[in-house]
Amino acid sequence: MVFPKIDSKKETKRVLSFIQKTVHREGFSKAIVACSGGIDSSLVLTLASKSLGKDNVLALKLPMANQSMILANLAISFAGIAPENIFEIKIKKPVEKIAEKMFFKSRGADLRQGNIAVRTRMIYLYDLAKARRILVCGTSNRSEHLLGYFTRYGDEAADLAPLLHLYKTQVLKLAEHLELPKEIIEATPSAGMWKGQTDEDELGFSYAEADPILHLFCDKKIKKSQIIKKGFDRKLVEKVIKRVKENEFKHKVPYSL
Amino acid sequence: MVFPKIDSKKETKRVLSFIQKTVHREGFSKAIVACSGGIDSSLVLTLASKSLGKDNVLALKLPMANQSMILANLAISFAGIAPENIFEIKIKKPVEKIAEKMFFKSRGADLRQGNIAVRTRMIYLYDLAKARRILVCGTSNRSEHLLGYFTRYGDEAADLAPLLHLYKTQVLKLAEHLELPKEIIEATPSAGMWKGQTDEDELGFSYAEADPILHLFCDKKIKKSQIIKKGFDRKLVEKVIKRVKENEFKHKVPYSL
Repeated sequence: MVFPKIDSKKETKRVLSFIQKTVHREGFSKAIVACSGGIDSSLVLTLASKSLGKDNVLALKLPMANQSMILANLAISFAGIAPENIFEIKIKKPVEKIAEKMFFKSRGADLRQGNIAVRTRMIYLYDLAKARRILVCGTSNRSEHLLGYFTRYGDEAADLAPLLHLYKTQVLKLAEHLELPKEIIEATPSAGMWKGQTDEDELGFSYAEADPILHLFCDKKIKKSQIIKKGFDRKLVEKVIKRVKENEFKHKVPYSL
Repeated sequence: MVFPKIDSKKETKRVLSFIQKTVHREGFSKAIVACSGGIDSSLVLTLASKSLGKDNVLALKLPMANQSMILANLAISFAGIAPENIFEIKIKKPVEKIAEKMFFKSRGADLRQGNIAVRTRMIYLYDLAKARRILVCGTSNRSEHLLGYFTRYGDEAADLAPLLHLYKTQVLKLAEHLELPKEIIEATPSAGMWKGQTDEDELGFSYAEADPILHLFCDKKIKKSQIIKKGFDRKLVEKVIKRVKENEFKHKVPYSL
């Protein structure tokens, strides 16, 4: 496997130091994490808690209707967050209220309502951060980032993003190293935009398939044809690279003079 | 006056070409502008309409309760936007619905509700852009940007930002050159976060006072003490530069490894 290995112990230390240094340098002592129960936010919560101290981390749950918070609660309890630092806001009603006033409701309704949900979460996350004067710790990883698999001004909005340099498969390794609950590690990744959504279904490939290709193309600057020559499935390579190219603009906007 | 002059005719041409090139290069033909009736959005609407053609520009009004849309309507009619491309969403109820679930409601309520309003506007703007597959044309200027006088993931969210390189006083000059309605040009700047808000009250200085200092400090990299020596009021210089420094982080986040 061509994928760059990481030394989980060393990398953990590096991320813990990054969180602490960044938060303190900016004049803060606390951070808040939006917890879905997914592996990214669960790992960030654990790392933040280890780095800043349990009492300096707030956990905010923002479930849509029927969205189970079992894994989120598991992550919160694993990270040792104090009861007074655990918050929950059910976003169904505000999201519905926003959606009521949408124009052209029939066009791409699922995706658009999903975007509204994700951006409403951002509003609450930043509002609570403002009220308590603390920093927002984001949960984006490098795979999602390069694939553009995020909602702009939504789930990528953060003050610090301690996993942004790590591919999803590396996030998984770190979570295993820190012995996060098995249920969280083994859960199917989902952006939580609608019920039953999975990243893999939407992307058309798994992170385990995509990450080595992303690494070769984006980090090593190896051309598509060369990557295929290395033995990767042509269709898979084309699908991954197409997605990267189509979503590059998300990192460049707003364009200006 | 040390302030860099602009050639309004040349600059207009440059911005018109930028809008057209950017929108077409990204594979689009239309753009949408959130119209408050303020000078920035009114100018952007006019420029977009001249650049892309009247029929290729959508205008979205997003008033809070009691927020007059008289100037917005004036700008829309001045830019010649077609009736089928004019949209309005009253954001009072969705904003109230979101605010209902805030924690620590008494802390900084005005600013926090204002942030919610601004971010709710972003949600509708991006939703309509998504539904119609068009680009979002932002209205931020360089003065607001450098002073950090914007809501992150709110009023600065855009696909292209045709005024981002221009100071507010330059925006005014361009608006005069394009003969925008006098009522718009002479109106007191406001971010529209709450009733009666004015930029000048909140900042503690006017754009006419700040812009030359911003130019010297941020563009020319001249030190505070040297700027004061040039004859600017010490307190004013200190206030402007303090604000720039305190808000620099807004352009750098999210911090990552």
